[in-house]
Amino acid sequence: MSANGAPARPIAIIGGTGPAGMGLALRWARAGETIIIGSRDAQRAEQAATAIQRRMGRPVPVSGMENKAACAAADILMLTVPFEGQASLIKQLKPAMTAGSILIDATVPLAAGVGGRASRTLGVWQGSAAQQAAELVPEEVSVVAAFHNVSAELLGGDNPLDCDVIVCSDDADAAQLTRELAAKIPGVRALDGGKLENARIVEQITALLIGLNVRNKGHAGIRITGLPPAAYL
Amino acid sequence: MSANGAPARPIAIIGGTGPAGMGLALRWARAGETIIIGSRDAQRAEQAATAIQRRMGRPVPVSGMENKAACAAADILMLTVPFEGQASLIKQLKPAMTAGSILIDATVPLAAGVGGRASRTLGVWQGSAAQQAAELVPEEVSVVAAFHNVSAELLGGDNPLDCDVIVCSDDADAAQLTRELAAKIPGVRALDGGKLENARIVEQITALLIGLNVRNKGHAGIRITGLPPAAYL
Repeated sequence: MSANGAPARPIAIIGGTGPAGMGLALRWARAGETIIIGSRDAQRAEQAATAIQRRMGRPVPVSGMENKAACAAADILMLTVPFEGQASLIKQLKPAMTAGSILIDATVPLAAGVGGRASRTLGVWQGSAAQQAAELVPEEVSVVAAFHNVSAELLGGDNPLDCDVIVCSDDADAAQLTRELAAKIPGVRALDGGKLENARIVEQITALLIGLNVRNKGHAGIRITGLPPAAYL
Repeated sequence: MSANGAPARPIAIIGGTGPAGMGLALRWARAGETIIIGSRDAQRAEQAATAIQRRMGRPVPVSGMENKAACAAADILMLTVPFEGQASLIKQLKPAMTAGSILIDATVPLAAGVGGRASRTLGVWQGSAAQQAAELVPEEVSVVAAFHNVSAELLGGDNPLDCDVIVCSDDADAAQLTRELAAKIPGVRALDGGKLENARIVEQITALLIGLNVRNKGHAGIRITGLPPAAYL
């Protein structure tokens, strides 16, 4: 634990300088987490960290590193990159991943990645982007699928969100940790979405939400209703 | 319009004696709609209609007919049958469908239909069960996908629901009519889910909700957040 009681265990946000990565960094920094923003370009990562610092208005444990260094320095890896960059980035980072790490994947295989529409998805042979990730990481690394359906714009704001995060993984402990991280974001409830294979559905929902956003000029999210309180974290 | 001001235009609920069909019949009967419950067996359909009458405690325009007769007697056809029966039923009913009819399809291609799990889906060549339906109906019949994600158990109860209905169709008027029917169910908001091809995502969501129900003993539904009020009907 760090001096202020927050966990010193860092979260590396790989490819974290985009809107989703920056939004998560901001929200988790506010919750007292230690964050490493990763980028292909170390300088860009540092600038992103400085931007978070400035936004917070007080010194917070947020730093920036080149992706591989960020990966080596953390056991919790949050992946927020476009689908078209996901597989090659994971292959590149694989040697830097330490055994026992958790890779939280928020990748959505949008057809936009190959020049198609953001309201359509690509078929992924493994079933989902998250399952593709699981095939590429070292054996001792657990993959969790989460945060696909959270609006990056709203994450980057100051208001509590109004959405649920559905967490899918074959590793119950990794899923639990991820649900706890999700629940640290004000307004977010976390749900056990079952096995990693279910990520295929959660990923698709993002394409539906993008379509709703386009038609209605909004920042759509989802809430799951009808479950007992114990279902939500 | 009928004497009590309700629309006399009937809604035929094809394969309507199951929980989802009976729930919709009940909710729409309460809203003053004229309902024909369809079943393979005319007598079973009549019994179902009598059950709704009894439940309402007052005479309501709810009748029961064999599926084909129900189909011929209505321009709004609500299909609530298991996926494994969908294609053959539509083929059988095709001659009875009148030009200008709307077929509202709530079919979910659950793997349970072929002995698999209800939390997994089957791949449908056309993309979704609704698109399969669209390929099978006469050209002058519009297909709308809706009501996949509404709990049949809660539909059959007396309390307002707490969920949204995402409506997908290539026919804007048919989609609008369906959204209006959805919004007649207390607690339901209807949303434009875009083209019929998007039904593939909405259908999958049901499998995810079934998994959530199994893990949490609930009756899960979804709400879409983050859209302006005008997005919801």
